[in-house]
Amino acid sequence: MNDRSPVPRSRDDDYTEAMAAVRRDFVRAQTGAELGHTGHYSQDPASLPGNIENFLGVAQVPIGLAGPLLIDGEHAQGEFYVPMATTEGTLVASYNRGMRLLAAAGGVRTTVVDDRMQRAPVFVFDDARAARAFGEWVTEHDDQIRAAAEATTTIGRLVDIEQYAVGPLRYLRCNFTTGDAAGQNMVGRATLAACAWIRSNHPDHPDFVLSGAIDTDKKHSAINAMRGRGKRVVAEAVLPAEVLAEQMRVTPRQLFRVRQYSQAGAFLAGAANNGAHAANGLAALFIATGQDVANIAESHAGIAYSQLLDNGDYYWSITLPALIVATYGGGTGLATQQECLAVLGCTGPGTVGKFAEICAATVLAGEVSLSSAILAGEWVAAHEQFGRNRA
Amino acid sequence: MNDRSPVPRSRDDDYTEAMAAVRRDFVRAQTGAELGHTGHYSQDPASLPGNIENFLGVAQVPIGLAGPLLIDGEHAQGEFYVPMATTEGTLVASYNRGMRLLAAAGGVRTTVVDDRMQRAPVFVFDDARAARAFGEWVTEHDDQIRAAAEATTTIGRLVDIEQYAVGPLRYLRCNFTTGDAAGQNMVGRATLAACAWIRSNHPDHPDFVLSGAIDTDKKHSAINAMRGRGKRVVAEAVLPAEVLAEQMRVTPRQLFRVRQYSQAGAFLAGAANNGAHAANGLAALFIATGQDVANIAESHAGIAYSQLLDNGDYYWSITLPALIVATYGGGTGLATQQECLAVLGCTGPGTVGKFAEICAATVLAGEVSLSSAILAGEWVAAHEQFGRNRA
Amino acid sequence: MNDRSPVPRSRDDDYTEAMAAVRRDFVRAQTGAELGHTGHYSQDPASLPGNIENFLGVAQVPIGLAGPLLIDGEHAQGEFYVPMATTEGTLVASYNRGMRLLAAAGGVRTTVVDDRMQRAPVFVFDDARAARAFGEWVTEHDDQIRAAAEATTTIGRLVDIEQYAVGPLRYLRCNFTTGDAAGQNMVGRATLAACAWIRSNHPDHPDFVLSGAIDTDKKHSAINAMRGRGKRVVAEAVLPAEVLAEQMRVTPRQLFRVRQYSQAGAFLAGAANNGAHAANGLAALFIATGQDVANIAESHAGIAYSQLLDNGDYYWSITLPALIVATYGGGTGLATQQECLAVLGCTGPGTVGKFAEICAATVLAGEVSLSSAILAGEWVAAHEQFGRNRA
Amino acid sequence: MNDRSPVPRSRDDDYTEAMAAVRRDFVRAQTGAELGHTGHYSQDPASLPGNIENFLGVAQVPIGLAGPLLIDGEHAQGEFYVPMATTEGTLVASYNRGMRLLAAAGGVRTTVVDDRMQRAPVFVFDDARAARAFGEWVTEHDDQIRAAAEATTTIGRLVDIEQYAVGPLRYLRCNFTTGDAAGQNMVGRATLAACAWIRSNHPDHPDFVLSGAIDTDKKHSAINAMRGRGKRVVAEAVLPAEVLAEQMRVTPRQLFRVRQYSQAGAFLAGAANNGAHAANGLAALFIATGQDVANIAESHAGIAYSQLLDNGDYYWSITLPALIVATYGGGTGLATQQECLAVLGCTGPGTVGKFAEICAATVLAGEVSLSSAILAGEWVAAHEQFGRNRA
Repeated sequence: MNDRSPVPRSRDDDYTEAMAAVRRDFVRAQTGAELGHTGHYSQDPASLPGNIENFLGVAQVPIGLAGPLLIDGEHAQGEFYVPMATTEGTLVASYNRGMRLLAAAGGVRTTVVDDRMQRAPVFVFDDARAARAFGEWVTEHDDQIRAAAEATTTIGRLVDIEQYAVGPLRYLRCNFTTGDAAGQNMVGRATLAACAWIRSNHPDHPDFVLSGAIDTDKKHSAINAMRGRGKRVVAEAVLPAEVLAEQMRVTPRQLFRVRQYSQAGAFLAGAANNGAHAANGLAALFIATGQDVANIAESHAGIAYSQLLDNGDYYWSITLPALIVATYGGGTGLATQQECLAVLGCTGPGTVGKFAEICAATVLAGEVSLSSAILAGEWVAAHEQFGRNRA
Repeated sequence: MNDRSPVPRSRDDDYTEAMAAVRRDFVRAQTGAELGHTGHYSQDPASLPGNIENFLGVAQVPIGLAGPLLIDGEHAQGEFYVPMATTEGTLVASYNRGMRLLAAAGGVRTTVVDDRMQRAPVFVFDDARAARAFGEWVTEHDDQIRAAAEATTTIGRLVDIEQYAVGPLRYLRCNFTTGDAAGQNMVGRATLAACAWIRSNHPDHPDFVLSGAIDTDKKHSAINAMRGRGKRVVAEAVLPAEVLAEQMRVTPRQLFRVRQYSQAGAFLAGAANNGAHAANGLAALFIATGQDVANIAESHAGIAYSQLLDNGDYYWSITLPALIVATYGGGTGLATQQECLAVLGCTGPGTVGKFAEICAATVLAGEVSLSSAILAGEWVAAHEQFGRNRA
Repeated sequence: MNDRSPVPRSRDDDYTEAMAAVRRDFVRAQTGAELGHTGHYSQDPASLPGNIENFLGVAQVPIGLAGPLLIDGEHAQGEFYVPMATTEGTLVASYNRGMRLLAAAGGVRTTVVDDRMQRAPVFVFDDARAARAFGEWVTEHDDQIRAAAEATTTIGRLVDIEQYAVGPLRYLRCNFTTGDAAGQNMVGRATLAACAWIRSNHPDHPDFVLSGAIDTDKKHSAINAMRGRGKRVVAEAVLPAEVLAEQMRVTPRQLFRVRQYSQAGAFLAGAANNGAHAANGLAALFIATGQDVANIAESHAGIAYSQLLDNGDYYWSITLPALIVATYGGGTGLATQQECLAVLGCTGPGTVGKFAEICAATVLAGEVSLSSAILAGEWVAAHEQFGRNRA
Repeated sequence: MNDRSPVPRSRDDDYTEAMAAVRRDFVRAQTGAELGHTGHYSQDPASLPGNIENFLGVAQVPIGLAGPLLIDGEHAQGEFYVPMATTEGTLVASYNRGMRLLAAAGGVRTTVVDDRMQRAPVFVFDDARAARAFGEWVTEHDDQIRAAAEATTTIGRLVDIEQYAVGPLRYLRCNFTTGDAAGQNMVGRATLAACAWIRSNHPDHPDFVLSGAIDTDKKHSAINAMRGRGKRVVAEAVLPAEVLAEQMRVTPRQLFRVRQYSQAGAFLAGAANNGAHAANGLAALFIATGQDVANIAESHAGIAYSQLLDNGDYYWSITLPALIVATYGGGTGLATQQECLAVLGCTGPGTVGKFAEICAATVLAGEVSLSSAILAGEWVAAHEQFGRNRA
């Protein structure tokens, strides 16, 4: 059974339409599947090294346009049209509806409150005492370790190194800023250089593994939600009662009552996000703009926080503690992806904060839209006034 | 500032290239961004209702081919070539390398061990006693509730209803099987019908909200990892020591030693997955095949489990407790997506188990490849034999 | 250095004051410590087999009396005086204050909503497929397994067996009711009998370990909070605004506003309890009444849930999902412990539900007292009305 | 029904045996319960202010003696006899057995790797931007905040202030060292002073609540396990294969194999501790020595980490990340409690590190004893060699 051929490659020039066609032919020969649509693309294969291997075509993911999304950010200011790549019906319509509500409410305020990307090696010792001494040594040699790390990058800056002790192990969570890049590779390289320096210079020359699994790359975790990974961004808005009533057919009191059910439920369930569905909007934005889509794992975490205000309006916020985004590197430079970033005005240096704010504002639009819909839908469907019971 | 126009739509026929072009022109007028590549696609816009709103073009996501991946599953049998849509360099190469290792080891054994998609409404009462009585009533009326739910669908079947009590609230986690569809909409509709029946027939006519946030849709959660959401799938392999040495330059003893660091780290970090990077392979497969990419949030959860065998070989497994996949519905029928499913032989009825097994096997390939690379890389980089220290 | 003697024991009659004195003398000889107070006790050593080994005296833990605590339970009805054994100043006073408030509010409603104690063995197979088949076999042989388990106990009843699949492992979470006993030993013995029956009768004669660490005995866990361990009990009360103002100098609006900070904080922190300090009241009650104090680990978990009612009053509930208590067995029969149970009317058969309700009501008293104090204290200390800011 | 009397108190001199007798009589009159044993104590009531209110007697908790426990710590050196107050049979015997094994293995190495007690207020702002600016202001005013906090205590020292951002909220986790005291009250007072200083001096005079629920006092939490609360202590030992075989009838290979089941189980279950039963030993030590027993909630968290060494021996460690202990303050000065501390040589200044190490070493003794017993018990009971299956 184990006799099938490896995927064809060209040593000389693998990133060509000719080789892509060879691979599509290979697929047809091996599996019978035709790849006519997959082979239909405008992206130049020659631009793809560093983005894909064994290229044979593209997934065409439909893009819908939502907006305008009114943002009062520090980096994003004004109205934005948001390209969302998805195959899930109603997603764009729902976010669009939320954006309309938010615009009527005066817009979304967005704030990037923290920024750090990490690689977290583990160093291994004979016992906890040696590991603790090592930790002190690392603190004392902070300057040299920083120098070793930063020598590998013109952009990355080592912010600090958190230390975690388990038995004879010492985990170092090395936090970097990474400019407009998401920075996983940048910080991996920098951390490896730091580790190599440490290993050479520490008297024990301790063993290490570059990742001790507390980074936690491509995985949701409590540590990421708590301490941050990528950008920590807040989107918030005050929704006037009359706007909610008119556009969503719900009241702030109803929203706040139901919010308590959701908070209890999310707490009980051990959920990564006690809001509604951040992953939906983020996935659509990530695909459209060339983000690393696997980072939905980390980025979808969130803490929703609301209050019923004294004047009867509704304060609503979503905090994304581990939003991993880029406007440089990865897939951001590819053909359609760069176009979609341009739609958002997020091409060129210094735009990643703007993009992060647009992401968070988009998420908030989805929260208000879906939460209201669930509430109103039930209410209507039930043909009765919601909330008869007191608790 | 709040003066920009809504996105143009056509009431009569919105799903046309003409309207897509209108929207691209609108974007150019509003933002200055050209959408030449985004407007380049072969998918017929007329096929897109139910998948996208405000369509204006596509994201072209490069697809690379990995494989062959040798699978000994119950649904997937033999060698597969896996189309992976990603913009992250080395991803395809790394999975490909893992697949080669697994083939040399005799292939991956895959098993779907459970299957359930849910919607979890919350019913609200005056006090805990009423909520408890309601719970008993629900159990007693299981047949009627099932009938009400299943009347809305020819495919979905209500497996059971889990109940969770918090104060005066009763959360019902309604578990369904959903055929080849992922089934979120199907179970939402069925659960709404069940709730409506309950509300009408229970003497208290209790209020409910269709989601009490313990579903937990588009969110990782402890409850999903524990109780399952979508398919629970295991991929496992026994890796001979000599194959690991030859292809990965690592030994089972080294892998198992480092595995303990990762397990401690993942436990400390509160990670959703104590393996390496399931999200990477899944995201690439999901985009290529028209899955709901936001479900990476749930699907990337995993429990890696390994043992060093008495004969010196290495047993490696990954359990994906909440893999949400479909071969019908959602984006699976779109042009390139359907082609990629065809490459895997996953078109037509009864193929979702096969696809789930391919996903899990792909993830395992990524685990062995990345974990070995981290280990060998450190080892080589350090120019010394790894593992001098005992702990 | 390793030359010290083992603790003296008597083969013939170790449970005597004479042997206790021998051991106190031994301690003095070895360490110089006098144990005059420790040797002062009234409990007959002859009654201690099964409760302690190497007995040498007692810890005298001061008991304070709180109450009356007005309870409207199904098992506990009326006013109770609660003996609390603690060394932490203000604890009794604070709970006492909460009880006064609750009495003024009309009392606490308590409900035991679930009851289950478990032991969770893991069975080990060659692969996931065999483990899944085993799971089906277990379901099919439910009657025989139940018979084998229940043959070991006149009280314990097997409620159901939850199954959890990880790779080639199958964890069985065997849920029992255990009468007035906490039941850990009872269910351990019954589960071992069940496992032995399974191992003998299943064609694979699979290996197992009696605990696969998902029980999770003496440990907080998500699975315990979700699925329950011991009693799941709710205590709830409606606090009139005027009572809160008069006795606590806080308003329902303030409490509810601050509640949102706590819910966000507890969610962010990954806390086992999003209320205030259940562990305090429970530890004091547990010590006084001879509970297994180590079960504070599980029992302190909680889900607080509140609503601001339309009439301006405040609904407050605490759900204890894993309250492990007994009125029979363990330390409940010891001298002072039995007296304290008698104070609560919880001696004799069929009293464990009553005791569980008293525990939950006591916890609620502590919640309202401490939460109000934190709020009012800050408010007063700040010499300004709390809550100027909107969020 | 609500007509029962409040508990009698004396304004002039409440801490007397006379008043204790009055309350015991009151209990008898109200409930019929006799408190003969409870009224039997030697502790002088006059010494109890600050430890208990409404004193009426004591719980007599039996103490058993375990040991000798051989410790190679930095603070604890040599052999110790450990007084354990419990009502659970076999507990002392089991820990004693573990101590014997550890002594045969050369003793336990213990290390306090971190030390911090915290109170975590939350400050509330209009939006996230103001909250972020506040956070920067706090960092800039670190010296003044420290001075304000430390002015309230001669012992407590502010180590650092961690900041956590959620929407418009800023949580400050203020970490202190607290000498030989557990320090919750000390840091509460100091943090209140810091908050008052902040509120007075920050231009916004922001509202705050003294606890925003991320402390997390008397509650297990991910943040405590990760960042520490109280002492973070490691106990570790290398267990020779022959000692394990002789004393426990298990082999390192068996232990390590089973260890993988437990790690997977604990990860799946979301357990606070992936070891066996730290809560048991800690609760017994806490009661005996006057610790705040409610802190079992935090203190029972743990990370077990093991390796099978190249020479066939077994390395075993337990890390307690949130061990809250004292040798000064709280109940440590009471009569029997002080005696038990004296048995351990933990009275007088500068002994808290020693006591923390004894706690951790005791826990490790319990881990090796119970884990071996489960393994051997199953093995023996099954009348077959364990571990036939490979995974």
